[in-house]
Amino acid sequence: MRVHAYAAPAATEPLAPTMIERRDVGPNDVLIEIKYAGICHSDIHTVNGDWGPQPYPLVPGHEIVGVVAEVGAAVTRHQVGDRVGVGCMVNSCGQCTNCRNGDEQYCLNGMVPTYAGVDRDGTTTQGGYSTHVVVDADFVLSVPEGIDLAAAAPLLCAGITTYSPLRHWEAGPGKKVAVVGLGGLGHMAVKIAHAMGAEVTVLSQSLKKQEDGLRLGADHYHATSDPDTFDQLAGRFDLIVNTVSARIDVDAYLGLLAVDGTLVNVGAPGEPLSINVFSLLSARRSFAGSMIGGIAETQEMLDFCADHHIGADIELISADQINEAYERVLASDVRYRFVIDTATLG
Amino acid sequence: MRVHAYAAPAATEPLAPTMIERRDVGPNDVLIEIKYAGICHSDIHTVNGDWGPQPYPLVPGHEIVGVVAEVGAAVTRHQVGDRVGVGCMVNSCGQCTNCRNGDEQYCLNGMVPTYAGVDRDGTTTQGGYSTHVVVDADFVLSVPEGIDLAAAAPLLCAGITTYSPLRHWEAGPGKKVAVVGLGGLGHMAVKIAHAMGAEVTVLSQSLKKQEDGLRLGADHYHATSDPDTFDQLAGRFDLIVNTVSARIDVDAYLGLLAVDGTLVNVGAPGEPLSINVFSLLSARRSFAGSMIGGIAETQEMLDFCADHHIGADIELISADQINEAYERVLASDVRYRFVIDTATLG
Repeated sequence: MRVHAYAAPAATEPLAPTMIERRDVGPNDVLIEIKYAGICHSDIHTVNGDWGPQPYPLVPGHEIVGVVAEVGAAVTRHQVGDRVGVGCMVNSCGQCTNCRNGDEQYCLNGMVPTYAGVDRDGTTTQGGYSTHVVVDADFVLSVPEGIDLAAAAPLLCAGITTYSPLRHWEAGPGKKVAVVGLGGLGHMAVKIAHAMGAEVTVLSQSLKKQEDGLRLGADHYHATSDPDTFDQLAGRFDLIVNTVSARIDVDAYLGLLAVDGTLVNVGAPGEPLSINVFSLLSARRSFAGSMIGGIAETQEMLDFCADHHIGADIELISADQINEAYERVLASDVRYRFVIDTATLG
Repeated sequence: MRVHAYAAPAATEPLAPTMIERRDVGPNDVLIEIKYAGICHSDIHTVNGDWGPQPYPLVPGHEIVGVVAEVGAAVTRHQVGDRVGVGCMVNSCGQCTNCRNGDEQYCLNGMVPTYAGVDRDGTTTQGGYSTHVVVDADFVLSVPEGIDLAAAAPLLCAGITTYSPLRHWEAGPGKKVAVVGLGGLGHMAVKIAHAMGAEVTVLSQSLKKQEDGLRLGADHYHATSDPDTFDQLAGRFDLIVNTVSARIDVDAYLGLLAVDGTLVNVGAPGEPLSINVFSLLSARRSFAGSMIGGIAETQEMLDFCADHHIGADIELISADQINEAYERVLASDVRYRFVIDTATLG
């Protein structure tokens, strides 16, 4: 099956329309007619080769929502016409301890990323900037009624990436949670942490987006460019979710944690960070990292978001705006996620 | 009250016998006739001024055991003749959140260290290399029958420093725990983790102390100087307790942790460490720090050690061997803790 897509022909070239091949629907496969695909910052890093050499042409996109068009003979979880989503992975070994524990994202044999990965049949995966995709049914999520489908797309990466650490480190009533950075990930973290019942503080470079932050559910908003912020909030938080991938002063942020507090990074800066162990010792603090979430947890997140009427704040674009959107993401000029209307791809 | 002690007259001079003043026994105080005092590596760092300028003359020692000689009018927890101990702190504010939670070691107003600290009455604290000490009853622990008193001394620092993170991060049956370094702290960590029911692995520079490690309770023993160790044990542990204060390759040790595993440092190297966040992200790992333990938890540790017949492996020395013992600690030539017989001080 040949389908319309937008692909990067090379690391140095803009994305352009193309046609790609999708595999036949196998017994455990689902064919999805993609309706919307979110643009994640990591799409840009991957396309540009920032994280190493890639297979080109490369179709990015791992925030995929659509409708089931066909199911394989063995598929029982999904039916034609269902609203479904696909996130950052489309397969894993299913056998290792981590897969068996529902942590497919940490598959010991390597989970298969939604694009630029090698699927278990040896083919290179191609992502969601496309009209259709064929995915193993076990990696297809149900998108509940009650979330606008376009606004649901970013939940498949930005949503689960922030939901998972918030759930794991028990954000909830009585807990003080800080979110560092108010971009695509940060705005989801604020909405979700607020819905979980935590007291939410945004720590952003400036106060430029303060009004937005409070509207999204934050109780407090502070500028990290103001050194007083670090004195004023010392020892305050139970959990800090850092959505900024750039280098940060880890010790300064650790100083904002109470006893037993955790600073969790959901992105990885390109270079190592420096950490003074005394920042950890002095209050039994932890510095942690978290990467997306497992499949069952992603479904739990979608159900949670539907229950709490949470979608992403999006700017819907057509395919011919993708390259411009990339420029705007790099300039932090998006509130808060670009979503491609895939009807414009063909 | 003037009592015999061993003090460092200055950072650059060896310790020498002296007489020091102990305060009158106040209503909530306990006068302890010290029987034994352990030599902790941090005594040496402090005396040498490695951690900043100190008040001299300085009497080190925060692994103190002895017998109650007198109690203040308001003291009910301890009686004359009781076997008691004092660890790394002798006071805290008692009012802050952390003190109220039993985390006096993280007192927001600063806990008072057993030596070279400023007590709440403004006097400089002097430690356990002495025949007597007067301590607030709330910071005096009971040493249960069933532990040899001399072997109990190191529990007050080395014991609680390792017990606390092992308990906090839930070492126990079904858990794989690694202990980095087999010195004073490490040998206690092995004994305690084994008694908690965990599967214990020692990660030591060489295999020199392997026989000891297995005798102390380790199930496995590996040399970190062998690069194969890091491949062979990749992803294996739930918890790694790092007792080595020197710089380590944090990423290499993080790679030994399973999903949700924690690497906890109980000592702080003098310089910052470098950490690649991907080492955390790739399996939701944590890098943490822990400092001694609270008073209630220290009592719990002493009771646990008595129940499991755990004391430190010690080499009993007389006061005139202290300077030589310092040299041997610096050369890692001690199995596994020097303890001063304070009867030799006078």
